[in-house]
Amino acid sequence: MTTVLKLGGSVVTRKDEPETVDETNLERAAAALADGPGDLVVVHGGGSFGHHHASEHGVSTTEGTHEAVGVTDIHGAMKRLNDAVVAALQRAGVPAVPVHPFSLAWRDADGTLHLPADSVRAMLDEGFVPVLHGDVVVHAGRGATILSGDELVVSLAGSLDADRVGLCSDVPGVLDDEGTVVPRIERFEDVADYLGGSEATDVTGGMAAKVRELLALDAPAQVFDLDGLAGFLDGADTGTVID
Amino acid sequence: MTTVLKLGGSVVTRKDEPETVDETNLERAAAALADGPGDLVVVHGGGSFGHHHASEHGVSTTEGTHEAVGVTDIHGAMKRLNDAVVAALQRAGVPAVPVHPFSLAWRDADGTLHLPADSVRAMLDEGFVPVLHGDVVVHAGRGATILSGDELVVSLAGSLDADRVGLCSDVPGVLDDEGTVVPRIERFEDVADYLGGSEATDVTGGMAAKVRELLALDAPAQVFDLDGLAGFLDGADTGTVID
Repeated sequence: MTTVLKLGGSVVTRKDEPETVDETNLERAAAALADGPGDLVVVHGGGSFGHHHASEHGVSTTEGTHEAVGVTDIHGAMKRLNDAVVAALQRAGVPAVPVHPFSLAWRDADGTLHLPADSVRAMLDEGFVPVLHGDVVVHAGRGATILSGDELVVSLAGSLDADRVGLCSDVPGVLDDEGTVVPRIERFEDVADYLGGSEATDVTGGMAAKVRELLALDAPAQVFDLDGLAGFLDGADTGTVID
Repeated sequence: MTTVLKLGGSVVTRKDEPETVDETNLERAAAALADGPGDLVVVHGGGSFGHHHASEHGVSTTEGTHEAVGVTDIHGAMKRLNDAVVAALQRAGVPAVPVHPFSLAWRDADGTLHLPADSVRAMLDEGFVPVLHGDVVVHAGRGATILSGDELVVSLAGSLDADRVGLCSDVPGVLDDEGTVVPRIERFEDVADYLGGSEATDVTGGMAAKVRELLALDAPAQVFDLDGLAGFLDGADTGTVID
């Protein structure tokens, strides 16, 4: 039983304050994960760590940079956030270890992501909980572009043949036009009218992109907030199920 | 033309002082690399950063740990050193970017190292200089063991089909029993009598192990010190040639 869980940037950071970890949320998440399922991969977003540096260097998922300093500014900020997430999980008793996507992933000239997952699989087999993060990624012909946490979730869910995928963000699920959680999405058309762009600046796309990517997975995915995390890890259907 | 260069832990750190970068040496090396060849991969050793933590947790290339905190202690120290090396190279104008081996490598139950080099190749193709380092590595059945810089050099030289391999350490080459540099080694037996163990504590083996590994490469390798680095990068034969 392999679970891929994303902790959104809006969960683990204070999105409006540069490079600020949301310690309260992070501790809540870590406590939930301490009772979590066996094979667990965690991916976290960038929140107020990654996006600021990405904007500053004009880098997005399609606009790249050949400046090594731009790469290390963005990557370094994400590693500082990853350090905080890994440390919080370890304090809660989770055998978390860091995996930095820039080291192993690359995009080809078409923008297709290649992420060999053998090292992550080997960590799971040894009882570790690999913790990946949104990052920069080398991109053929464009230097380095942004790799979103959502893309990582989709890639890992496929390559690890995940049984369950969870996206924990700051909303309790995908909302309809009255602000009510949509319990189940089977086709993008079911919710196309409700999904505008993300309000905050987010170089990696909002809910619409998430839903499209999750629909493409073999595994069922769920979108929920911190209140739903423990339930998801217990095997319950929480928030919005996308299948 | 692809070059793999190792900067030994004895070059970039003060081996006798815990977690201390040798700034003078590092700046000299960075200045030499600024005029370096096109496709260049740099690997650095652990010196006073990695070995201390490895010893403390009882971890070696064969003795592993399943403690996540042990993994991050060693890995974190090596990333701090890598930050310093990458920053020094960038200051000298080298488009250096970090690659953390723990993220992408793994050992199987036989201890054989698997290191997919596609991301490193993609970085080279975009004009970056990937900078790897001795690290921990997940090891099937043993948790995580140590991955030496020398093993990385051997693996990358093979997978990147390197044309030249250089090992810059604190000795001007492989020395005979009178302290004179042996200009050329073609078989281990040529120098077996001269090569004892390394004097300092070194979890990853001394010169004997290096020579054996370098002899197994397709590419010619050279062992030299900082005085020989600029010459090596210019294409000259410096120190000891192992071929």
